[in-house]
Order: sequence, then structure tokens, then C-alpha cells
Amino acid sequence: MAPRVTPDQRRRADAERNLAAIIKAGRECFGRNPSASMTEIAQAAGVGRVTLYGHFSSREELLEAVLHDTLTHAQQAFDAAEPQSGTAADALSRLVRASWQVLDGCLGLRAAAVLTFGESGVRRRHEVMLGRVDALIGRGQDEGDFRTDLPRDWLVATTYGLIHLAADEVAARRLARDDAGRTIEATVRAALAIPHGRG
Amino acid sequence: MAPRVTPDQRRRADAERNLAAIIKAGRECFGRNPSASMTEIAQAAGVGRVTLYGHFSSREELLEAVLHDTLTHAQQAFDAAEPQSGTAADALSRLVRASWQVLDGCLGLRAAAVLTFGESGVRRRHEVMLGRVDALIGRGQDEGDFRTDLPRDWLVATTYGLIHLAADEVAARRLARDDAGRTIEATVRAALAIPHGRG
Repeated sequence: MAPRVTPDQRRRADAERNLAAIIKAGRECFGRNPSASMTEIAQAAGVGRVTLYGHFSSREELLEAVLHDTLTHAQQAFDAAEPQSGTAADALSRLVRASWQVLDGCLGLRAAAVLTFGESGVRRRHEVMLGRVDALIGRGQDEGDFRTDLPRDWLVATTYGLIHLAADEVAARRLARDDAGRTIEATVRAALAIPHGRG
Repeated sequence: MAPRVTPDQRRRADAERNLAAIIKAGRECFGRNPSASMTEIAQAAGVGRVTLYGHFSSREELLEAVLHDTLTHAQQAFDAAEPQSGTAADALSRLVRASWQVLDGCLGLRAAAVLTFGESGVRRRHEVMLGRVDALIGRGQDEGDFRTDLPRDWLVATTYGLIHLAADEVAARRLARDDAGRTIEATVRAALAIPHGRG
């Protein structure tokens, strides 16, 4: 006998499927266009506006959910880059590349988030990732890979700042997208390296 | 016989004095507090609201004038730092220090400008200064002082970005104000230097 599906279970499954479709559509629509509207996102998700507003009562709430989902994805990319393995300098290069790969797919989302939450609001939502960068930079300072003549907080801010600067420069078409990964990696490496002629 | 002052000349002199007082008060009020109101600024300038609104029809218009005035001051500081003299690396360090000295006095103004005009709007208003940094970085690349393996536009963006990142970090109390000048200078130098072991 086939298992019985109650109307409640069916409704719940529908709601979950719709939610996933909305988040995915939000990532794609904001990714392309920071000004994407709720109507556009509902259409892209294949749901009605009533359903969309049933899940998110405002554009800001939806943007928050899409950003959260994308940052969770970025954290997974960080884990996959194995920050504990090898030299800290090489590990940081892997994290930088991983960050760029995620960002590159959603430049419009970053712009929408900065417009809505401000630069400092966006930074606050990166705290978990900043904590991992901080730990890695600490390891690199202990192991003699990174400079210790500048505050560690500043080196973390520089790493975060250069990655997001590159995203803004690509969005403004002042930096070639294909060149961005290598460019960020080389700049972060140079900024954190022990200066010439010092121990 | 004392020169005759016509009522028209007197009105014009009053208006000029008021305008100068408003701009000065705007710089001080925004510098302390990005949310400074028109009423506060009128009080600090010692003029009535009617006079203030006679000069600037909106807070945004006043902010634009204060920003313009401050950037003119920053350009004069750039000239005084003599970007043409000595090695490009030393000249860039002087420009970076000069920029920080101006910025340090008006962190709140930067925050107000970013809130009102957006990060890209603020950057656009720095075009004249960015042009000078661009020329100096070009000289440094020609003279073998700066790296040529990364696009010049990116090195300009990095210099501008690191100075303003430091301003934001000081405002957020993650970087000690007294340490900022040295920190920015060291980071910009490292980011633009020719990488270890290359010609």
C-alpha cells in the first residue's frame, strides 16, 4: 500500500518547494540587477505575488534571506578550501579565490545588499567568515608567513576590503572579470607579506 | 573721505560671510555627526534657518557644497605634497599621508556623503584626485618603483580603497586613529611594490 500523504504534509511540501524556488530566483534576479522587484522575482520563481508575500512580507526581508543563503554557501566554499591545510599564505589564497568565485556569481546581490543594509550592515553579516579569516591570519603571523608590524584586525579588514573592492571595480567595468581572481590574490598576498628586508 | 559702501555691496558682503560660516559649520557638524541636521548647522553658523535655506534649498545641496569645499582643500594638500618630486614611492606615501590628514578631520562627513551619494557617487567626486594618483602610479611603473603585473586602474583603486577603508575602520573603532597614517602608508606601499624576486 502506498504511504498516505495528508493534505497538511502536501501543503508543507509545496511551501518548502516554493520557498526554495523563491530564494533561487532572488539570487538570480538580484545577481543580475540590484533593483530587481518583487514582481520580477515572483515571476522567475513561478509563484504568484500572494505566495511570495506569504513567505516574505517585504523586499528587504527577501533580500536578507537571499543574502543569508548566499553567505551560507560562501562558508561552505571556505570549508572546502581547507583553511587549516598547508601554509597560511597558500590557504589564504584559496579562501580569497573561493570568496571571489561566490561573489562573481552575484555582484548585483552585493550592490543590492549595500544599498539596503549599508556597507557596515553587509560587513556585519560576514562576521562568521571574518572570524575564519582572522584565525587564519593569526596562524600565518605565528608561523612567520604574514607581517606582524600591522594590527591583525587591519589585515583582516584589508583582505575583506580588497575582495569587495574588486567586486565593485568589476561591476563598474574598471577591472576585467577574468582578471579579478588573480588580481585580488596577488594584492592580498603582497599586502600581508612580511616587508622586504625584515624578519 | 571714506569710500562709500552701497546697500547692495553690504548685502553681498553679508551673504558671502554667511556662506563661508555655513560651509565651515557644515564641515564641523557633519565631521562630528553624519546625521547632523540643518537646524544644528544653522545654529553652529550663527545664522537663521531662513538664511541657511536661502543659500541651500536642501540638506543634500549643503552636503554637496561642504564635500566640494573639503575636496578642494584635499587637492591643495595633494599639491603641497609635491607628487612630482623624488621617487614615486615616496611621493605616493606623502599623498597617502596628506589624504589621511584631511579625512581624519572629517570622518563623519565621509559617512554622510556615502549615505547620501553612495560609495560610487563619492568616488566620482574624487575623479580629479584619482587622476593625480593615476599619473603618479604611471610614473612609478615607468621608473621601476611599482609593480606592472597588475592593471594600473586596479592599483589606483587599491590606493583609494585602502585609504577609505582605514577611515571606515577608524570610525568603527577597529583601527586606532593614531595608528592609521602609518598603517595605510605601509599597506599601500606593500600592495604596489614589485613582488619579491621579480625585476
